[in-house]
Amino acid sequence: MGKVLAGITMSLDGFINDCNGDVSQLYSDFATLRETEVLQEAIITTGAVVMGRRAYDMAEGDFTGYEFQAPIFVLTHHVPEKAPKGENERLSFTFVTEGIESAIEKAKTAAGDKDVTVIGGADIVQQCLRAGLVEELQIDIMPLLLGEGLRFFEHLAASQIQLERIKVIELPAGRTELCFRVIK
Amino acid sequence: MGKVLAGITMSLDGFINDCNGDVSQLYSDFATLRETEVLQEAIITTGAVVMGRRAYDMAEGDFTGYEFQAPIFVLTHHVPEKAPKGENERLSFTFVTEGIESAIEKAKTAAGDKDVTVIGGADIVQQCLRAGLVEELQIDIMPLLLGEGLRFFEHLAASQIQLERIKVIELPAGRTELCFRVIK
Repeated sequence: MGKVLAGITMSLDGFINDCNGDVSQLYSDFATLRETEVLQEAIITTGAVVMGRRAYDMAEGDFTGYEFQAPIFVLTHHVPEKAPKGENERLSFTFVTEGIESAIEKAKTAAGDKDVTVIGGADIVQQCLRAGLVEELQIDIMPLLLGEGLRFFEHLAASQIQLERIKVIELPAGRTELCFRVIK
Repeated sequence: MGKVLAGITMSLDGFINDCNGDVSQLYSDFATLRETEVLQEAIITTGAVVMGRRAYDMAEGDFTGYEFQAPIFVLTHHVPEKAPKGENERLSFTFVTEGIESAIEKAKTAAGDKDVTVIGGADIVQQCLRAGLVEELQIDIMPLLLGEGLRFFEHLAASQIQLERIKVIELPAGRTELCFRVIK
């Protein structure tokens, strides 16, 4: 059985997007990042992906050439009318309207021995953390200050979440990945 | 000429004390930390220390056995009536009422070829950053969530501060030190 991982990229001052909802500064290194061993390994070990509706919409439903070639479970209130692009033998879409527990459960079944990777946004990762569904939390810190925007660590009851640092990875472009085990 | 370094310890969610102003959870590793090579080296390379009045008061003016045995410059509005404890040939106190530029300038002179270490609190480190006085920023992240308290990165205009990651150090007890060059 694989693990459930959740990852988020934030600025050093804790924001996951800027005051306009823009994430481009946080992913300015995306082309480089895709080539790293860390992401290549994540792609191999990921058996299913869970994402929120916003992340899905940000890709405009087009997952052609998407890095994770695995079943994707999109947590949403309403199933989009338009079919997503980019489906193939490995990459399929399931829209889950019954809540995060159901999305994770379905993803676990699909992933088999591999990991389930929750790629956000913030809201879905927070839901997973609160519900005790995450085993590993990966916080990528970019060496910049956004000053304002959406904070990742907001409305999270500290007492619910105990962390143990597992490893720290220095990635290109100043990106630092802090990996924590979530202690239950 | 040495550098001006500023360091701060914060929780993963960005707080430098909890809702009661307590810092004990952030320094639960203090005894261990003192023994690390990193702190031992910092002690050697530090030629002068700048701290705010709150940090001074938190030590209750008693610096007997203080890790930094160097001239200490305390930024304050009012010079305390009671003389501090712990002064010796190497460790002396200067109370600076003319503002942060003056404190840093005096500390630089005292430090000579060694570094000036600004040890906080948040307010003084922020003042240093805003005034462009810091060359290296060390953010220690502890693997815990405080949920509320005083945020370090608050009221800092992002546009003023450009950072470049220099190194990342994994310290005991899950403490991770991110070192940044402040680009001017």
